[in-house]
Amino acid sequence: MTNCIFCKIIADEALADIVYRDETVTAFRDINPAAPIHILIVPNKHIHSVNEITSEDEAVVGFMHTIAKKIAQNEGIAQNGYRLVINTGSDGGQIVFHLHMHLMGGKKLVIHKY
Amino acid sequence: MTNCIFCKIIADEALADIVYRDETVTAFRDINPAAPIHILIVPNKHIHSVNEITSEDEAVVGFMHTIAKKIAQNEGIAQNGYRLVINTGSDGGQIVFHLHMHLMGGKKLVIHKY
Repeated sequence: MTNCIFCKIIADEALADIVYRDETVTAFRDINPAAPIHILIVPNKHIHSVNEITSEDEAVVGFMHTIAKKIAQNEGIAQNGYRLVINTGSDGGQIVFHLHMHLMGGKKLVIHKY
Repeated sequence: MTNCIFCKIIADEALADIVYRDETVTAFRDINPAAPIHILIVPNKHIHSVNEITSEDEAVVGFMHTIAKKIAQNEGIAQNGYRLVINTGSDGGQIVFHLHMHLMGGKKLVIHKY
């Protein structure tokens, strides 16, 4: 997707603090962190949102969770815990329309009402 | 798991307002909703948390997102949007140690700092 900032990061056409990458998934630090550790995990394939996931995409979405677990270990937050969040659409608070999972931790996270 | 409330719900040994079930996934309304629509989607297999996911579990974790999308459609919130949250461990706010995904929507959800 020509104008997608996450596609540009994946293609090394835009800068990001990348913490993990392979042929299917890329992960980088959120530039506006909402927690002491805040990393975005994205599929390299451009998927607009959860609403556009097909059965073919389930493997990469599942794999994103394995990567989240590994990054949490690398960041030293696996044992204390962390939160994974995927926002979809306007009500969900999705801002970039390339599917992405927020991995947040590094403190005791508040359990909010929404 | 003998003492797991979600395993009991899956086995019909505890009551819940179930909105979806099949051979791999069960979904039911949260008894303490944090949003107008708040549904928990769980694998029928007892997985403690994201920290215990193995490569074998990626298929069901990916499938949970397809089910989230379908439930969002059924609940009439797919177009406006929704949020998926998986808490892991104490810092993440995990209370029941059977992997579960929160599907929340029905209003414009706040984007919190944690």
